Amino acid sequence: MTLPARAQEPGTTHTIHPGEGGGAGAVRRTVLPGGLRVITESMPTVRSAAFGVWAGVGSRDESPADAGASHYLEHVLFKGTRRRSALEISAAIDAVGGDLNAFTAKEYTCYYARVLDADLPLAVDVVSDMVSSSLNREEDVEAERGVILEEIHMRDDDPGDLIHDEFSTALYGDAPLGRPILGTVESINALTRDRIHGYYERHYTPSDLVVAVAGNIEHERVVRLVSEAFEGRLDGDGAPSAPRIGGEPVAASPEVRVVDKDTEQAHVVLGGVGVSRTDERRFALGVLNAALGGGMSSRLFQEIRERRGLAYSVYSYTSQYADTGVFGVYAGCQPGKVDEVLSICRDEIARVAEDGVEGEELERGKGQLRGAMVLGLEDSGSRMSRIGKSELVYESLLPVDEVLGRIDAVTPDDVRDVARAVLAAPQALTVIGPFGDRDFSL
Amino acid sequence: MTLPARAQEPGTTHTIHPGEGGGAGAVRRTVLPGGLRVITESMPTVRSAAFGVWAGVGSRDESPADAGASHYLEHVLFKGTRRRSALEISAAIDAVGGDLNAFTAKEYTCYYARVLDADLPLAVDVVSDMVSSSLNREEDVEAERGVILEEIHMRDDDPGDLIHDEFSTALYGDAPLGRPILGTVESINALTRDRIHGYYERHYTPSDLVVAVAGNIEHERVVRLVSEAFEGRLDGDGAPSAPRIGGEPVAASPEVRVVDKDTEQAHVVLGGVGVSRTDERRFALGVLNAALGGGMSSRLFQEIRERRGLAYSVYSYTSQYADTGVFGVYAGCQPGKVDEVLSICRDEIARVAEDGVEGEELERGKGQLRGAMVLGLEDSGSRMSRIGKSELVYESLLPVDEVLGRIDAVTPDDVRDVARAVLAAPQALTVIGPFGDRDFSL
Repeated sequence: MTLPARAQEPGTTHTIHPGEGGGAGAVRRTVLPGGLRVITESMPTVRSAAFGVWAGVGSRDESPADAGASHYLEHVLFKGTRRRSALEISAAIDAVGGDLNAFTAKEYTCYYARVLDADLPLAVDVVSDMVSSSLNREEDVEAERGVILEEIHMRDDDPGDLIHDEFSTALYGDAPLGRPILGTVESINALTRDRIHGYYERHYTPSDLVVAVAGNIEHERVVRLVSEAFEGRLDGDGAPSAPRIGGEPVAASPEVRVVDKDTEQAHVVLGGVGVSRTDERRFALGVLNAALGGGMSSRLFQEIRERRGLAYSVYSYTSQYADTGVFGVYAGCQPGKVDEVLSICRDEIARVAEDGVEGEELERGKGQLRGAMVLGLEDSGSRMSRIGKSELVYESLLPVDEVLGRIDAVTPDDVRDVARAVLAAPQALTVIGPFGDRDFSL
Repeated sequence: MTLPARAQEPGTTHTIHPGEGGGAGAVRRTVLPGGLRVITESMPTVRSAAFGVWAGVGSRDESPADAGASHYLEHVLFKGTRRRSALEISAAIDAVGGDLNAFTAKEYTCYYARVLDADLPLAVDVVSDMVSSSLNREEDVEAERGVILEEIHMRDDDPGDLIHDEFSTALYGDAPLGRPILGTVESINALTRDRIHGYYERHYTPSDLVVAVAGNIEHERVVRLVSEAFEGRLDGDGAPSAPRIGGEPVAASPEVRVVDKDTEQAHVVLGGVGVSRTDERRFALGVLNAALGGGMSSRLFQEIRERRGLAYSVYSYTSQYADTGVFGVYAGCQPGKVDEVLSICRDEIARVAEDGVEGEELERGKGQLRGAMVLGLEDSGSRMSRIGKSELVYESLLPVDEVLGRIDAVTPDDVRDVARAVLAAPQALTVIGPFGDRDFSL
């Protein structure tokens, strides 16, 4: 069963999922004044707690003048608050052996700490302080500019990383989804303290934030700790922002993009538009992805690596966004073998678009998705991510059992239909390697 | 307390650690005929099981003619047995959504699958079959040669990865510890099926192997499953091989190594000989490492990234081997800033070698080690690794509480002493970047 969509007054608490015996898996949600959401999942058998604050903003929300601001701001939030210096922020979590970090995606940003359960109050206090009371001082923005530029250069030095940013551009051009999360050297150099701070003030209001906590925790206590940590920021009658769902799909403009670079390997991504996060076909696409390039038994791995020894790394993948998605294939091979590898990829894609996947491959794909999902939810960090992200991007949290049921329900026809739709769409191609001005075509 | 060193007859079972209530943490060990060791740790509150087979052989055991053979063999073991093709091996684990993988280190090699607890019999059967009955056919060795060469090229394309192999060579020269685990293009091209197969026959005997299992499992059942899976291979009166401990420390020959490469960043590692795996000073060195470059609050992170914005990635690290170890510092920065970054690294190293670390840094370093250890043992995979590796490289398994006690017992004098010993030793330096024939000196 899908639980009812959320509709909840500030100051009230709601049980989203009752959980099993002993409180395991109970998911509860409280909306605090100002619209700050607190969602928790109880895992009584672990000794850890993962505390995250999620902001519903990412690189696709940036204007060209703000390009890279979401990620830049994510860095600046570690630099200090009224109560803590940068050193005091990191020292507090280091002292208890916790893991303090953050990441920026195209549609959201997350700050988190994973600690022993007894240290949860500290984690709540430090991470909430960072997110709610950042000073974003001029000198901190300046010092961090160099760090971000080095992060860009490091990405540029790793072609297996760079290719995914280049592929986004090949598929979406200059649309926000096509731009790199890190921004560019030019856009980072142009961002001022005032723009960064303005971005913070606009996007980090209580109604845009979600607090997610999983582990050996107790919901009411978490709510109390979060209320104290956000003290003074939780007034007004703000209601939680609506989840980021749907919208007119951004137009893709697939093209061929060749980056000439003096590398040992050719790095290749071939792919196109997939399905959105709420598209009913996402489970069928997951099964298709598993069968085509999701594991060692997949067609691409078997043909390109196992039989022909052409690549060490070869895989397919999917990404989902509110309105659209991506389906792509990656391979790294000798520059002289790139035509052979691309030809195999195209053949396997054409074959699966024509015939779908066979009975055994279908069952294996389902088993792969089911097992990976259950095994992936054994630690507090991944549970925290699931509930926090869901609150930002779905109408309601799908219980694990329902996800497993939807995977089980995928039919051969579902897979063939989504294969035809996705793989028949115009593809983009990105190649990085020592190719001079050689042309590639689709 | 340290539990007594192991001394155990084949066919008997021994409780290494009684565990807590409910069986959590119970570690048991059985030696099967032929000397095959089975060691398990019970985690009744998880739903998963991690099954690993460890071979006590790695790249430092290779003669020059075998360079890269341990890792090459690790790949070939996925290619097929009398009972299963390569596809059947991977399909079996993919079908249940498990994670099947392997890794080769300088002193050991591990093959593992992490699955849902109900799928443990399958994991035992598949992984044991791979390791005990590999065919190592000529055509499989040939097909995999291309894959390994691509893995080498991929490493070459990622300077943040390449630098660690280059640094090993800068520190240990042509000694086995100084050679890359992957081998070289030349050594891989020279390896024949017969050499690979001979390596397998020599090093994968039951007495050289350790089976390690952690998760929601029951020891006697695991022993039964493993006995069945290794059937026909477990005869003779072989006794378990002795753990890899001590020996005359391999001589270091630290030098400066510059790799001219057209990269955006300069990648730098500066370091020298650390302490061995059984050296009593390893806990003090862990605290020193945490304080110098182990986290965001460390001296190097604060000075190089936080205050000056010179690097995105900067850290120190330690590695331990049977007879020796490594202590190193990594940074990636603009090529024009490499002298400034190296100068800061040298200053901080000199300062800590002179004065040790202060009270608050000491406590923070201890907290960091303690917390990371406990948080790191929450999943079945890391528990399996701890007990499997320990069986190969320690006299006895140190209980977690004892490790925590040893960390707590580190004094400021311990840290200063190990800092003086380690940091005063001759250092090696490796730099990758667009430096032409520019010289660097220590």
